[in-house]
Amino acid sequence: MAPTDKRDQKVSLHTVERLSVYRRKLEELGTDDVEYIHSHELAALVGVTPAQLRRDLASFGSYGNISRGYDVRRMSRTISQIIGTDHIQHVGLVGVGDLGRALLSYRGFEERGFHIAAAFDVDPDKVGRVFAGRRCYALEKLETVIADLQIPILVLTARPEGLQEVVDRGVKAGVRSFLNFVPKTLTVPDGCFVEHIDISAKLEKLSFLSRQDECQMETAI
Amino acid sequence: MAPTDKRDQKVSLHTVERLSVYRRKLEELGTDDVEYIHSHELAALVGVTPAQLRRDLASFGSYGNISRGYDVRRMSRTISQIIGTDHIQHVGLVGVGDLGRALLSYRGFEERGFHIAAAFDVDPDKVGRVFAGRRCYALEKLETVIADLQIPILVLTARPEGLQEVVDRGVKAGVRSFLNFVPKTLTVPDGCFVEHIDISAKLEKLSFLSRQDECQMETAI
Repeated sequence: MAPTDKRDQKVSLHTVERLSVYRRKLEELGTDDVEYIHSHELAALVGVTPAQLRRDLASFGSYGNISRGYDVRRMSRTISQIIGTDHIQHVGLVGVGDLGRALLSYRGFEERGFHIAAAFDVDPDKVGRVFAGRRCYALEKLETVIADLQIPILVLTARPEGLQEVVDRGVKAGVRSFLNFVPKTLTVPDGCFVEHIDISAKLEKLSFLSRQDECQMETAI
Repeated sequence: MAPTDKRDQKVSLHTVERLSVYRRKLEELGTDDVEYIHSHELAALVGVTPAQLRRDLASFGSYGNISRGYDVRRMSRTISQIIGTDHIQHVGLVGVGDLGRALLSYRGFEERGFHIAAAFDVDPDKVGRVFAGRRCYALEKLETVIADLQIPILVLTARPEGLQEVVDRGVKAGVRSFLNFVPKTLTVPDGCFVEHIDISAKLEKLSFLSRQDECQMETAI
């Protein structure tokens, strides 16, 4: 069931995040050979109320069976269709540094239906080279390559300097979503989206936590 | 000022997250050669109220100067001391797959004061080898290596199966914090912490967003 009707268009971001959590848990259950699960059990596993779970899923039709519960594999597949990970989408990566190269070789993107189709960098030593099977283009070619390869998503792993300009150019060229690994605040117009993965902030939080001397460790020792 | 007194111990996680954001913005400002900034300007840049900013910073002493504002570099340095990124901390990495190897070569950890001191895997082909300068140990050695190298933080990039057991063993061996890249819910006792970086969930959200046909793109076109 593809989200083509008006009702599906109105799914909130919070719903999408929860759907993603449901799907992951369903995948785990599928791996453990669980075939059916009742809504209250699944709700408990993911930490939402059964009412919330049923509301989220009701928008997309029915997967329920009163006696046996939800069909685990079928529901997982349908959620993938809803969130769009059942078909390959092209992604561009800006900034072929350490993290950029790491992500180019990270298979998790492909597993989720994302193919990094092109990489971009400003460094003349990198431009024209192939990294993990992907060609590195000069940043000046951003608009052309986005159009040629139909790229709706950019992964940002470049330096913070000039990054907003890259985003603005991407938006003008038709990019809708940005996955930003750079510790820099970015702005996009309405209808475009930035998701921030802030490894530094997580590390700093852990750093602080791991230095606390007075944590309660009774349970752990 | 190191967070050794009672008052500092009580800093909330939300404060730490905000401190991390302030520090990052101060670093950006420092790079742009800004020497001083008024609290209301900094608050506006990071999107908090001036009252919130002053409250967060007041817990750690005074950096203010009524006429010139905060000293950008000094404040950035002091926040680093508070959150503990001013000295090297040892980190262990569990799971030398694609993402694990990527993170081993990611210099962002070192830049934030984290040194991945050891990697662990169950694969006999990987055990004993050196990846990006770090030795890969058998997972059975987890407790010994954690104790020998004084590792308070584990980065998790292994398969979801058996991961909770690894966490439980880490906790017993003295690990306080876990940076979890694996799409799996983990539980830790009070006083220990898990930070989740969920690349899959972010990708799925972007996937959904990038498929929305009816976004408002007026501003972008």
